[in-house]
Amino acid sequence: MKVILDLCVVPLGVGVSLSRYIAVCEQVLARAPVKTQLHAYGTNVEGEWEDVMCAVKECHEALHRMGVPRISTTIKLGTRTDRNQTMQDKVRSVEEKLIE
Amino acid sequence: MKVILDLCVVPLGVGVSLSRYIAVCEQVLARAPVKTQLHAYGTNVEGEWEDVMCAVKECHEALHRMGVPRISTTIKLGTRTDRNQTMQDKVRSVEEKLIE
Amino acid sequence: MKVILDLCVVPLGVGVSLSRYIAVCEQVLARAPVKTQLHAYGTNVEGEWEDVMCAVKECHEALHRMGVPRISTTIKLGTRTDRNQTMQDKVRSVEEKLIE
Amino acid sequence: MKVILDLCVVPLGVGVSLSRYIAVCEQVLARAPVKTQLHAYGTNVEGEWEDVMCAVKECHEALHRMGVPRISTTIKLGTRTDRNQTMQDKVRSVEEKLIE
Repeated sequence: MKVILDLCVVPLGVGVSLSRYIAVCEQVLARAPVKTQLHAYGTNVEGEWEDVMCAVKECHEALHRMGVPRISTTIKLGTRTDRNQTMQDKVRSVEEKLIE
Repeated sequence: MKVILDLCVVPLGVGVSLSRYIAVCEQVLARAPVKTQLHAYGTNVEGEWEDVMCAVKECHEALHRMGVPRISTTIKLGTRTDRNQTMQDKVRSVEEKLIE
Repeated sequence: MKVILDLCVVPLGVGVSLSRYIAVCEQVLARAPVKTQLHAYGTNVEGEWEDVMCAVKECHEALHRMGVPRISTTIKLGTRTDRNQTMQDKVRSVEEKLIE
Repeated sequence: MKVILDLCVVPLGVGVSLSRYIAVCEQVLARAPVKTQLHAYGTNVEGEWEDVMCAVKECHEALHRMGVPRISTTIKLGTRTDRNQTMQDKVRSVEEKLIE
């Protein structure tokens, strides 16, 4: 089952500057067999359910190993059986409607 | 790694009445080794990461088997290494502050 | 326009114990012309769009006044024109399907 | 109070192809005094709280006028008092850590 997911990991108890921790998550995701696209409030991730969810877990594990005591993560995720759709397809599909 | 998660599964392409599908998810969660609490905009789930995430996947699989062509799910999830905390602890902790 | 909303306010830069801040949000919501229900990963809020969104803004303002330097909030919100539905209706609707 | 928000509007009861509705939301946002950036699972929006929230409400109103009977929206939103930060700053801040 393929999934497109939006991942937003929020480390708690480590102050207000979180980019260092988000960068570690980006590195974890880069090593996983998934496609990713960073944006201003999270990261889009595309891949097989098991691969994507394994990468999400590894993000939590990596941050806890760095000493982050608490993490609150928000995820949006979509699956569909009617068609195969990539992250790029989703953006293009909206942009095409804007041009029409 | 223990996780407390808030799960909100939104089936698409099946009209506006979703309670039938949410009930199926509740049944899937009830069979899993996790604790759950239904609320008006989702279900709180508590358990081991693997058990909780496996149950989330089974919800998607069950709905697709029922003929739901597309699902958009929103998840909030928290892990912490500083202390063990249950769903009940979280609510009680806020309520105690309200009484003080 | 009526809205049912799930609010999860996460204060950053104030350590890992957040219940004190969530309790302040509960007090802000209690003074607003909305119905609320606290759960383990947020608070359900029901009311007119303007009232609910005003209360959400007041939560952010109250926490910043307490010295919280950064806040990351997750909201789910639903509106519908086909029928009037309360938070209680939503839960009951799922529970009825479970009994059938 | 400035806010950076991630908006994901999910129309229900109109089938599985949602890009037409997302495009309408993009047009609503384009007319508002806010900055936006579309991604594969939502749209980042930056601006003053009132302007951003007004635009979100107008998205719901526009879709309901188009005949969408039910909408479920997921929002992440951040405010901070310690510094001024744009959407671009947030992405650049993570990317700099990746290069180091």
